Amino acid sequence: MTVAIIGTVAFDSIETPRGVHNRILGGSATYAGVAASLFSPVHLISIVGSDFPQVHFDYLEKRGISTDGIIRSSGLTFHWKGFYKGDMSQAHTLQTDLNVLLEFDPKVPASAADSRIVFLGNFDPQLQLRAIKQFNRPELVVMDSMNYWIQDHLSSLRETLKLVDVLILNDQEIRLLTGIDNVIQALPHVVKMGPKRIIVKKGEHGAIMYNGSDFFAVPAMPLDEVVDPTGAGDSFAGGIVGYLANSPALTEEVFRKAVIVGTLVSSFTVRDFSLGMLERITVDQLNTEFARYRQIAAIPETVSR
Amino acid sequence: MTVAIIGTVAFDSIETPRGVHNRILGGSATYAGVAASLFSPVHLISIVGSDFPQVHFDYLEKRGISTDGIIRSSGLTFHWKGFYKGDMSQAHTLQTDLNVLLEFDPKVPASAADSRIVFLGNFDPQLQLRAIKQFNRPELVVMDSMNYWIQDHLSSLRETLKLVDVLILNDQEIRLLTGIDNVIQALPHVVKMGPKRIIVKKGEHGAIMYNGSDFFAVPAMPLDEVVDPTGAGDSFAGGIVGYLANSPALTEEVFRKAVIVGTLVSSFTVRDFSLGMLERITVDQLNTEFARYRQIAAIPETVSR
Repeated sequence: MTVAIIGTVAFDSIETPRGVHNRILGGSATYAGVAASLFSPVHLISIVGSDFPQVHFDYLEKRGISTDGIIRSSGLTFHWKGFYKGDMSQAHTLQTDLNVLLEFDPKVPASAADSRIVFLGNFDPQLQLRAIKQFNRPELVVMDSMNYWIQDHLSSLRETLKLVDVLILNDQEIRLLTGIDNVIQALPHVVKMGPKRIIVKKGEHGAIMYNGSDFFAVPAMPLDEVVDPTGAGDSFAGGIVGYLANSPALTEEVFRKAVIVGTLVSSFTVRDFSLGMLERITVDQLNTEFARYRQIAAIPETVSR
Repeated sequence: MTVAIIGTVAFDSIETPRGVHNRILGGSATYAGVAASLFSPVHLISIVGSDFPQVHFDYLEKRGISTDGIIRSSGLTFHWKGFYKGDMSQAHTLQTDLNVLLEFDPKVPASAADSRIVFLGNFDPQLQLRAIKQFNRPELVVMDSMNYWIQDHLSSLRETLKLVDVLILNDQEIRLLTGIDNVIQALPHVVKMGPKRIIVKKGEHGAIMYNGSDFFAVPAMPLDEVVDPTGAGDSFAGGIVGYLANSPALTEEVFRKAVIVGTLVSSFTVRDFSLGMLERITVDQLNTEFARYRQIAAIPETVSR
């Protein structure tokens, strides 16, 4: 079953201690789409400029990602330039050229309207809302956002949240959204805003899921080198929605497995620039990585003797 | 089998959003000792002043903590005053009265010299070294430290590290000790300094253990309120060394269980001021809490179908 992913497709210019790469393929929808396509057919809904090369469209289509929903505008593609240094968990923005993003008005093609799962990457919550309304009763609406929308577009964001089933944010964003420092204490307040389930991404510290009553908490895969953190959060979410779209029933157990899959997929993403590692991995490799992860994170059955 | 715990016994004056408490019982050795005494007899080695009341000695002895190694000086007991606010993970110091700590020279009583496990709480690494040498071949020397000793007494610290089997530090301290931002990358460098095993405490983000080749990573218990974080790290370490002292063989599996026990013990500590909650819990309650933890943190056996 398919997943529709709406968000940005971008050129990224990135500097990390491991190197400099200019105008490489990026964007929240690109990372999420490539990650989701490991498990499920994907509809990608976005906008690019006339400078976006055919080779990128071909690449996406070859991965089972339909590009019918990508508007081809006459302007220039969205471009982000930034760098990482030190603890690598914080992106430092040098330049943001919104370009065609300023005219983005997502159009869901008829072929995508019946998608089982809709994932709204991080973009204007008013447009996220307009996108949701173009789908025919998706089983699950999953949403990402970021500090900018929470701070400056809170009322739109809260309108959109009412229609969201699963919200994926990082811990700082949860604090910002609720004004509560303790993330665990904050989560029931987020549930009152609409989402039935919240997945908190914490980068190197793993993830926490809350379903309105129970928690699920997992560590990240220990990584001794992060080459490029760009797209980690987007591929975490993409891995989750792709895995869910490919699962017969969305049980609690399936959600837990999805969070682990997202964790592993994002740990692959950061081991190379752009989509370099993400596009090379297979489901078989992911299963091998899971076996390694389980060695690291499995909880013994008892601590008493 | 017994564990010897060497470190500070203190009066703490603490303000948190939940209240103000003046001159309550604290100190790294006190927290570690009370936590360890859940599992094992404890020898506490420290120094207090003439203002330290008999009722505290009686309390410790009643828990199976021998106070023979606590020097009773004519000065005043070490006193720390501080507060927590906001995210509660950072202590803000208002006042430190070292008092009798300035004359501390640990004397291991004959009754403690055969302890199976020696835990060195956070204090002067030169004194930590002098303490280690007073024991008759302990099976395991476990050590804690803090940024002050790493920054200003690095050469003493490195001498002491050579005799340490297990080092327990937080992630910031690991970065400081190695000059490496990525904690996972830093750990093999710490092993080269002496310790065969490192346990990284990450507070609300759980813990990571490294044994020179393999990692073990666990999340923290999700807590919707932290009443007083004082002693969290000390009771984490105390839970670990007490559990180890009470285990027939120190296998990898036992170390993993010990890290989880430390995680749960410290999550009890922060739910009340001072030793309030820590002194009330029992091993039975800890086992019940473990069952709850396992519901939250257990990794499924597979993610493939």
